[in-house]
Amino acid sequence: MTKQLKQPNLRIIPLGGLGEVGRNMTLLEWQEKILIIDMGFRMPEEDMPGVDYIIPNIDYLKNKKEKILGIVFTHGHYDHIGAVPYLLEKISTPNRQLPMFASPLTKGIILKRQEDFSRQAKLKINQVYDGSKIKLGPFFVEFFKQLHNIPDNLGLFIETPLGNILHTSDFKFDQNPVNDLPTNFEKLKEISKRKILLLMSDSTDAEEEGHSLSEKEISENLEKIFKIAPGRIIAATFASLLNRVQQIISISEKYGRKVCLEGYSMRTNVEMSKLLGYIKAKRETFIKAKDVQNHPDSNVVILGTGAQGENEAVLMRITIGGHRFLKIKKGDTVIFSSSVIPGNERTVQIMKDEIMRQGAKIFHYKMMDIHAGGHAKSEELKEMLKIMHPKFFMPIHGQYSMLVAHSQLAKEKGMEEKNVLVAENGNIINLNQKRIFIEKEKVLSNYVMIDGLGIGDVGQVVLRDRQMLAEDGMFVVVVIVDRQTGRVKGSPDIISRGFVYLRESKELLRDTRKRVIGIVERATGTGGAVNWSYIKDEIRNKIGQFLFSRTQRRPMVLPVVIEV
Amino acid sequence: MTKQLKQPNLRIIPLGGLGEVGRNMTLLEWQEKILIIDMGFRMPEEDMPGVDYIIPNIDYLKNKKEKILGIVFTHGHYDHIGAVPYLLEKISTPNRQLPMFASPLTKGIILKRQEDFSRQAKLKINQVYDGSKIKLGPFFVEFFKQLHNIPDNLGLFIETPLGNILHTSDFKFDQNPVNDLPTNFEKLKEISKRKILLLMSDSTDAEEEGHSLSEKEISENLEKIFKIAPGRIIAATFASLLNRVQQIISISEKYGRKVCLEGYSMRTNVEMSKLLGYIKAKRETFIKAKDVQNHPDSNVVILGTGAQGENEAVLMRITIGGHRFLKIKKGDTVIFSSSVIPGNERTVQIMKDEIMRQGAKIFHYKMMDIHAGGHAKSEELKEMLKIMHPKFFMPIHGQYSMLVAHSQLAKEKGMEEKNVLVAENGNIINLNQKRIFIEKEKVLSNYVMIDGLGIGDVGQVVLRDRQMLAEDGMFVVVVIVDRQTGRVKGSPDIISRGFVYLRESKELLRDTRKRVIGIVERATGTGGAVNWSYIKDEIRNKIGQFLFSRTQRRPMVLPVVIEV
Repeated sequence: MTKQLKQPNLRIIPLGGLGEVGRNMTLLEWQEKILIIDMGFRMPEEDMPGVDYIIPNIDYLKNKKEKILGIVFTHGHYDHIGAVPYLLEKISTPNRQLPMFASPLTKGIILKRQEDFSRQAKLKINQVYDGSKIKLGPFFVEFFKQLHNIPDNLGLFIETPLGNILHTSDFKFDQNPVNDLPTNFEKLKEISKRKILLLMSDSTDAEEEGHSLSEKEISENLEKIFKIAPGRIIAATFASLLNRVQQIISISEKYGRKVCLEGYSMRTNVEMSKLLGYIKAKRETFIKAKDVQNHPDSNVVILGTGAQGENEAVLMRITIGGHRFLKIKKGDTVIFSSSVIPGNERTVQIMKDEIMRQGAKIFHYKMMDIHAGGHAKSEELKEMLKIMHPKFFMPIHGQYSMLVAHSQLAKEKGMEEKNVLVAENGNIINLNQKRIFIEKEKVLSNYVMIDGLGIGDVGQVVLRDRQMLAEDGMFVVVVIVDRQTGRVKGSPDIISRGFVYLRESKELLRDTRKRVIGIVERATGTGGAVNWSYIKDEIRNKIGQFLFSRTQRRPMVLPVVIEV
Repeated sequence: MTKQLKQPNLRIIPLGGLGEVGRNMTLLEWQEKILIIDMGFRMPEEDMPGVDYIIPNIDYLKNKKEKILGIVFTHGHYDHIGAVPYLLEKISTPNRQLPMFASPLTKGIILKRQEDFSRQAKLKINQVYDGSKIKLGPFFVEFFKQLHNIPDNLGLFIETPLGNILHTSDFKFDQNPVNDLPTNFEKLKEISKRKILLLMSDSTDAEEEGHSLSEKEISENLEKIFKIAPGRIIAATFASLLNRVQQIISISEKYGRKVCLEGYSMRTNVEMSKLLGYIKAKRETFIKAKDVQNHPDSNVVILGTGAQGENEAVLMRITIGGHRFLKIKKGDTVIFSSSVIPGNERTVQIMKDEIMRQGAKIFHYKMMDIHAGGHAKSEELKEMLKIMHPKFFMPIHGQYSMLVAHSQLAKEKGMEEKNVLVAENGNIINLNQKRIFIEKEKVLSNYVMIDGLGIGDVGQVVLRDRQMLAEDGMFVVVVIVDRQTGRVKGSPDIISRGFVYLRESKELLRDTRKRVIGIVERATGTGGAVNWSYIKDEIRNKIGQFLFSRTQRRPMVLPVVIEV
């Protein structure tokens, strides 16, 4: 049996990004040669306290280092590149760093981030551009420009031995982008003429009706605010939304305002993008925070991070008086130029209230179109399906409900049910010219959590403990037992945090100590051999029940029994 | 100086509900006689793990029990009645329960809840209706019907010695409500003719443009779903949205479907409302969960709680296979008939994905108008301002940004800046015929947290500890020191939870123990008197730093030093 027969299909294995937003990473495999597309992380869920990021599980690649051809990156957002520092070393060999391909800006962002991981070897990344073609094993990859909300975003046209795959990257269509050329529909049509066997397309906004807003509309609305703002303008957005950042800088220049860039990520991103030519601004536009007071309020824009209410970001620090030079004042106009990420609504509302209390006026995306997402909405997605006219379709990038909505759009466009595949992380998708299907077997694709320096060492046990500790705190009982007499020496020590305010709970503590002594001495007083682990269990259970009966709370009870 | 001169103004003191959504409670004070309006709780913020509810601080009432005239309730939602079991006893005297006034349904809900607090004395509540008039000290209160999303909601027209106050309660205008009469504009106009000195009006939806949807539109859309649903319909909403519950029951009856009520609060609320005549349904409409399987899928509606993705609610249990009789199956249609409360978006998304994976179809309020809020939007609020034509206006019920938006509406309607007052919790608002203003002094209005049986015993210290424990867990070091030699006996014990997976961190633990011994023996080895608290501080700091350097995590380090 030849290998050809053993594996007649192309295999597509999404390790992240399907059924979730973020952590994008997909494998293309042909006869044991593997091409990796993107390597991103995602933010943790609310029930994962202390976790920094979640990255893909690459267990499947463990013994296949030699078979990996390389990594192609679509764009520089962390949900597409953020896992590189954690994963790249694990799949490189000492002699060979995996070949990596990225556009200049994407490369710049990857390398910039790498500086935080100074222990790691310096990366070599090959630059690719709109129109670049590379050969990686059996795959020919042609990169093509796609508009998104960060410059230098590339879609992938991949020739495989079985047919052509089109991977859209994150994208939206825009006839009027900022500092960029409009979507090149002619180019997309030209590509489609080469026949698309499989289209893999961005589903993030598949549940949204209509078209995404053009950046031109956003600009016009932002200008309206610039025209009427009587004092300073404080604009908050993501540092990674480089198109929005450019827009605000350009409008500031147009209206004769200086721009104070605030926040580490905002400053470094803008600096690098300017260096690479992706942000255009006059040198004299920028001023420092400490010099803001030297300019008339009506000539100032403060552009920073923090539109999500992030604790450490600029806008929060300005709002709660934690910034060295800047604070909100009457007459300020605060622009929230980003949508609120699900889960952040409460924090953003509280911050907005606080800003208004201090007398500033607020504009946010629900009041006025001053933010557009970077993702195609349903009408654009249908347009993409129409242009590419693929034989098979597989929605990518998004929560399960978004993938399903996207698959519905394909069916509306006349695609047959059997040619549309809603897959999930860990599925092994088999593709040939006749059909697309999911293998029975799955590869591991669970969350791998990053917490500080730990990669994957925080698992369900640790998380469950954190959740328990958060709910009702903990209660350590230290009891010293005289080995000879079986009597408790002195009074048991109690250390508790997050449970009750100890100073006001003296009676509860006294009763608890009494009970602990009782539990221990009943167990040691039998005359037989002392079962120390039984004593610990008894303390844990009985004291737990006792505390619950008194408080209706369940702190984690941890007994320490010391024999002397 | 007479009292009259000392207090020539009416005082209005909001203890909750201003600058927040929920926890509504307001005091009206005239010459030391106090009338209380509502007594609600709110849900905790995300950074308050383990907290059940937040109630108003009633410190201001502490030594004024004899001066409280009574409590009037507007409606039966917990943000208006939920604090009764925690606060009522504190302001009643042994001989006198405060007079309470509520509509029949509101009374029923208060009494039902009181059953969970069996230790407390049985409450006596006076029933009031649309048109009821009562005299409480210097106040004449006339109740009038207002539409909301729970029946039997009453606005308050209050005659005071200084003029008339109109308190809208939560409300919306609706020409086509469910099983209820439309808004009686004639009545509102009649009231307004008696001259309104101050209007206090619901601001919850003041930031929303236009009109709230009529319940009739909602019904029509729900019917569309009933017409096409091939199998069972699973409808999730709040048990307190009794109007929506009625609607779904009525439509079920119209389409020949049986209704299985699921969830404790849903069942008890419907039972009581049926008993009191607020929900109309045929007895034979209802079936039990265990009998659902005996009916054709197309004849079944499961109506339960859980549209917010609450962990313990019906929909979540059905979704994750935690329900004894019911689970999602292909062909089911799931209706989310409530908006998503800010903060719950992620949980709801994850639950929706899971439901879709199991093959059900989902309808939610973003796809189709199958939910209307219970609050007037800006056009209705302007209408209310126009009808009441008050001299003074004070927005109530809502986040600060909502109060400000509402105040803008009043100014748009021509009210003078000085007659519109945006106040906050704890403000003492003074009102007379000439002006409205806030006193310099404030009363306490901070959060009082309920956690289990504790009222107010969880404060900032306990919460901060819980947050810390949640982030990186805890790390208890138990070290036994020989008093004579100053040497550490045996190996220090380490108890850690929520920090790292201990079994895989043996090296870290070994190095930590070594350091602990070093710290202790350096301190005891000096020959002088041993400073035990210095040793504890050293362990806390040095071991904290050491663990951080190794893991970039900061568990709470708790040293236990035992001398033997």
